[in-house]
Amino acid sequence: MALLSILTPALVVVLCLVIGFILFKPQETTWTSPPQTTAGSRPWVDQDLQDDTEITATEDEDVDLADSHEEEELPHVAFSLPRHTEEAALKRSKDFYNLMNQRRSVRFISPEPVPRKVIDNVIRTAGTAPSGAHTEPWTFVVVSDTEMKHQVRLLVEEEEEMNYRQRMGDKWVQDLAKIRTNWVKEYLDVAPYLILIFKQTYGTLPNGKKKTHYYNEISVSISCGILLAALQNVGLVTVTSTPLNCGPRLRLLLKRPANEKLLLLLPVGYPASDATVPDLKRKPLEEIMVHV
Amino acid sequence: MALLSILTPALVVVLCLVIGFILFKPQETTWTSPPQTTAGSRPWVDQDLQDDTEITATEDEDVDLADSHEEEELPHVAFSLPRHTEEAALKRSKDFYNLMNQRRSVRFISPEPVPRKVIDNVIRTAGTAPSGAHTEPWTFVVVSDTEMKHQVRLLVEEEEEMNYRQRMGDKWVQDLAKIRTNWVKEYLDVAPYLILIFKQTYGTLPNGKKKTHYYNEISVSISCGILLAALQNVGLVTVTSTPLNCGPRLRLLLKRPANEKLLLLLPVGYPASDATVPDLKRKPLEEIMVHV
Repeated sequence: MALLSILTPALVVVLCLVIGFILFKPQETTWTSPPQTTAGSRPWVDQDLQDDTEITATEDEDVDLADSHEEEELPHVAFSLPRHTEEAALKRSKDFYNLMNQRRSVRFISPEPVPRKVIDNVIRTAGTAPSGAHTEPWTFVVVSDTEMKHQVRLLVEEEEEMNYRQRMGDKWVQDLAKIRTNWVKEYLDVAPYLILIFKQTYGTLPNGKKKTHYYNEISVSISCGILLAALQNVGLVTVTSTPLNCGPRLRLLLKRPANEKLLLLLPVGYPASDATVPDLKRKPLEEIMVHV
Repeated sequence: MALLSILTPALVVVLCLVIGFILFKPQETTWTSPPQTTAGSRPWVDQDLQDDTEITATEDEDVDLADSHEEEELPHVAFSLPRHTEEAALKRSKDFYNLMNQRRSVRFISPEPVPRKVIDNVIRTAGTAPSGAHTEPWTFVVVSDTEMKHQVRLLVEEEEEMNYRQRMGDKWVQDLAKIRTNWVKEYLDVAPYLILIFKQTYGTLPNGKKKTHYYNEISVSISCGILLAALQNVGLVTVTSTPLNCGPRLRLLLKRPANEKLLLLLPVGYPASDATVPDLKRKPLEEIMVHV
């Protein structure tokens, strides 16, 4: 009994530490692994899409700013562009606007073949985009293989169906017919090409260390904008899609390395002869521009 | 003494709880307010640039997916594009590549005036970009006012200098002359236009509630890619910059609402007659494209 009363304070200490640990541990877990905790409750927020620049940065603190130093160490060369008259520039700006304004996201794509060289030039054009510290952090995976396109479709549709089921809950059954059109993506089989755009979240330095690619998501998205312009310029259509939660599985399917994350998936081809688009309007200039 | 030995276990319990609380509390604080803790140690990661889609989503859970439902409720209209012969398409794809491949980030901009109508058309063209659920979440602030351009320059340079000072530490004094060229941005005064591209992180529904703009950063970056193509098409140059940590102050300077965050700042004009660019090369096609 005397022994027990001497031991009591020690036992209480152990018990308290255990209780304290149990009580406060969960918050620490949330901090270190947010993807698990948020993915379940909000399935439409695609975890894989998030720019993990910050996470990667902790592994390699000694990196350059987006305004590259490497660039400054290179010799400079003279630069000029063809100079248009005021009238010509105005006409060019109008013509290019008219061309781009005809672009729409099109889900009805013709199976007709598209010359491979045209696609090559479109990708080359996308590769002229600027990027943080000239890292060119993009990989364009062009899929024309019928079986691989089908695998991509199955994977995307499977995830989409799950997303819709989770999201719709009880309304699911009654709305089934209507919603099904959302996650059945026939164009992934039909389009002659799928272009899967990956962002490289980090690269490798000559010494084997990781090199963080700052602003990789912005850079790759800018490159995609130029790619869309290049497609439109040759009469091809696409729908700019961000496949929900499919990134990691598509990356494995296409055997891309771990530093690459899927940003966008574009089915590409000529528009189907009976293609339709929703009758959307664009905001007028005065709603998107402010002049100071 | 007897009273004390009875009280000891109770005191130990209280002590343990206090210790436990002190030990585990800090992690909770880090979780709720990461911006403060990371901004100090890594000043080159721009907090304001991060897409706060996730944060905003907690305020309004009932939102649409990027693949809009609104679109589906609209009537559909027929869609077609001019069809080019194979030969013509190939030529167009080459010509557009050659045009875009001449684009470079240029820091030496001529003060010569640029017709305002050309800039209007460039912004109109950027506004044709696709966006998540057709939210068109962009605002292009075009600054031509001399005094306002100068205010923007002062603000950007002040922040840049702080960033460099923090980053360089002891090496600062000796490298001063070399580094100064990084944060002195004369082109912000000289260029006839500054285009500040804001992403709208949320919009307002007719009932006054917030509407989250999913993928707003990707959408606005894509729009910027089309804008760069439009500038290049008329012989104008820019440097695609992401001003570090300046977003909130520039937003206030330009009187933009709280839902808008600065994504990019582009000084725009003709290239200076003595403009130079670093002698960079671009990755060849086989390094950026994978064909399956």
